[in-house]
Amino acid sequence: MPVVDIADKLALFSDHWSPKVVARLNDYEIKLVKLKGEFVWHTHEDTDELFLVIDGRLTIQLRDGDVTLGPGQLFVVPRGVEHCPIADGDVSAMLIEPAGVVNTGDAGGELTAARDTSLLD
Amino acid sequence: MPVVDIADKLALFSDHWSPKVVARLNDYEIKLVKLKGEFVWHTHEDTDELFLVIDGRLTIQLRDGDVTLGPGQLFVVPRGVEHCPIADGDVSAMLIEPAGVVNTGDAGGELTAARDTSLLD
Repeated sequence: MPVVDIADKLALFSDHWSPKVVARLNDYEIKLVKLKGEFVWHTHEDTDELFLVIDGRLTIQLRDGDVTLGPGQLFVVPRGVEHCPIADGDVSAMLIEPAGVVNTGDAGGELTAARDTSLLD
Repeated sequence: MPVVDIADKLALFSDHWSPKVVARLNDYEIKLVKLKGEFVWHTHEDTDELFLVIDGRLTIQLRDGDVTLGPGQLFVVPRGVEHCPIADGDVSAMLIEPAGVVNTGDAGGELTAARDTSLLD
C-alpha cells in the first residue's frame, strides 16, 4: 500500500500522450500523463473521464465550446461527449477512469497508447 | 459541465469531517474535506477509498503501520482495511470513492456526515 507522490512520479517520465497508471481504486485507475500540442478528437462511449491539471494549461475542446484548466482545476468529460485536449506547452495531468479505457477512445490511430503500469508500485 | 477549482471550493467551507461532493465520475464521487484532529477507526468493507492531500499533513493510521501524506501525495486505503485518519493541524484533502459511501464506514457515531452536495455545480 504505497504512497504515491505525484511530483516524484512525474519526474520519472517525459513522453507525451502515454498515461501511466500510478494507483488503482477498485476497478478504476489513477493515471499521470504529460501532454503537449493537440491530441485527436475522440469519444468514450461507455464512461466519463476525469482530468485534473497538475502543471501547465490544458484546453479540452468540445463540440459546443472549450474548457480551459490550470493547476488544481478538474473537469469531467461526460461519457459520449466528443473531446480533443490541446496543451499550450507542456502540461501534466491526472486522469481517472475505469481500467481498460483507451486514450484515443473510438478514434484509434497512431496516438493510441498501450496500458502502462511501469510506475505502479 | 463546470470546471472545479479545488482552492475556490475549499474557500467555501470551514467545517471538519464533512465531505462535500464537487464532481461526479460515473457512479463515483469526488469530494473535498477538511480534517483536524483524530477521526474514528472504521472500515469500508465494499470499497477502496482514495485520499489525496491538498494542504497540510495527514496521517492515516492503519493497524499494521501509519501512512503520512503531504500535499500532492495520494494513498488508496484498500477495502476491508481498518483505518483512522489523524490530521496534525488543518488538512484539506480530496476523497474519491463510489457514491453512497459513508465517512465513518462500519463505525457510525457522531462524526457520521450526511451526503453533502451543496458545492456540486
